[in-house]
Amino acid sequence: MQAGIIGLGLIGGSLGLALRETKMFKSIAGLDTNELHAQQALSLGLVDEILELQEIKECDIIFLATPVEGIIETLNHISPLSAHTTLVDLGSTKQRILESVPKEIQKNFVPAHPMCGIENSGPKAAFKELFNGSLMILFDCQESGDFQKAFAKEVFLALGMKILKMDIFDHDHHAAYISHLPHIISFALANVVLRQEDPKSILALAAGGFKGMVRIAKSSPVMWSEVAKQNQENLLESIEAFQKEMQQSKEWIKQEDWHSLYEWMENANHLHDIF
Amino acid sequence: MQAGIIGLGLIGGSLGLALRETKMFKSIAGLDTNELHAQQALSLGLVDEILELQEIKECDIIFLATPVEGIIETLNHISPLSAHTTLVDLGSTKQRILESVPKEIQKNFVPAHPMCGIENSGPKAAFKELFNGSLMILFDCQESGDFQKAFAKEVFLALGMKILKMDIFDHDHHAAYISHLPHIISFALANVVLRQEDPKSILALAAGGFKGMVRIAKSSPVMWSEVAKQNQENLLESIEAFQKEMQQSKEWIKQEDWHSLYEWMENANHLHDIF
Repeated sequence: MQAGIIGLGLIGGSLGLALRETKMFKSIAGLDTNELHAQQALSLGLVDEILELQEIKECDIIFLATPVEGIIETLNHISPLSAHTTLVDLGSTKQRILESVPKEIQKNFVPAHPMCGIENSGPKAAFKELFNGSLMILFDCQESGDFQKAFAKEVFLALGMKILKMDIFDHDHHAAYISHLPHIISFALANVVLRQEDPKSILALAAGGFKGMVRIAKSSPVMWSEVAKQNQENLLESIEAFQKEMQQSKEWIKQEDWHSLYEWMENANHLHDIF
Repeated sequence: MQAGIIGLGLIGGSLGLALRETKMFKSIAGLDTNELHAQQALSLGLVDEILELQEIKECDIIFLATPVEGIIETLNHISPLSAHTTLVDLGSTKQRILESVPKEIQKNFVPAHPMCGIENSGPKAAFKELFNGSLMILFDCQESGDFQKAFAKEVFLALGMKILKMDIFDHDHHAAYISHLPHIISFALANVVLRQEDPKSILALAAGGFKGMVRIAKSSPVMWSEVAKQNQENLLESIEAFQKEMQQSKEWIKQEDWHSLYEWMENANHLHDIF
């Protein structure tokens, strides 16, 4: 069997390395519209060969691992596929991508979301352990073929992933709060410090707390501006909920209501009782 | 020589362990108004004995390692001290503490700020490596005695710390941006998720990015509400600067100005060019 990966950045490149370890595939082909990334992926050994879209279509299983707008773009050009091909989407948002799947390849299509992104991007960031032990979200997608769903699941388990089933609507809502909003916050915090008069002197004081908060401000602007576009409504809702908390805490600090501030901080502590 | 530590939580307790390693002191005494913490510190071996304030005053060097309001409280009761005693304040804010030092012990007093706090608190969180390799901020404080400044510095170097000198005013401003604001943001993000209809399902998706952002939401509400009280103005300024970034990014998402959002994210990436 042959696997194909479209998009050879952190996710696609790491997938190439991890799929090779499973020994399930005779060869692993890749495609990246960024010529430099395609060549890097090849020379780093992330994939065995670089193919064109028309050739990669012949693979038994094809993974869509580009930023989310690129996934929609690919869906517009990849149809038709053979009845037994499995097409796995690894995008961070789901609603808009699902609306973009051409009817004739709905049976081939298996949406999935690996919860293992890190702040580094591009082929050089790839490493074979990225998926091992991480969570893969799968969806109750009635249009997907039973074979395709079973095959994709088999591959994810071979990668050492844990599987969690979720409703598409819930996923996009939850992902806004757990992933998309935190990225916006991290970008905002980084920009706040950079806009100060003397960011270097401020950053000289940075310890573990700050570093943890701005780590994901290093993430790909292409990926995250496209996520914002595709999950616009949920993201706006989550930003507004977050703004209310910031405004409330600011009011308490302004009014010197230290007791309410204390209780709000204590309530936040309870997050760590849950996970 | 004998060292005394007032406040036996993460900082004070870890200091007890680390001071013992330096072999500079014959014994290390502790004090904590929380009786349970005092007993835990003793049974965990963080200090050699528990003393009253009047006894601990006799130590050669005394460290103030309580939350910042407790430091001011102690300053009101610890005076007078022998001319050769060194009194080191380890609080996270400086302006208000400095205003609270009684004139007769200004020479004894050395303000310092270790940039190595973590999210866990209390004596059980203490560990002897906390200070090793971390940054200790020292201040151009003209009132401190030369001997006291030199002695405190000697101890910090023996703990394996790096020394950075800073102006008090700059410190409180910079600390608001690099430490106090990030804590407020982390508490806010934790509270946003906890207030959702089904926080457990949302948290099931949590991966490294989110975990890094809410780690410090586990921090002590006593410590951080008191920091907010003592650094109120700088913190309010930093919250407002942060709110502007959040509001701006929300507007772009609402207006579908993906290009501006992209550029803003790309600008945030530059933080990692500096540190």
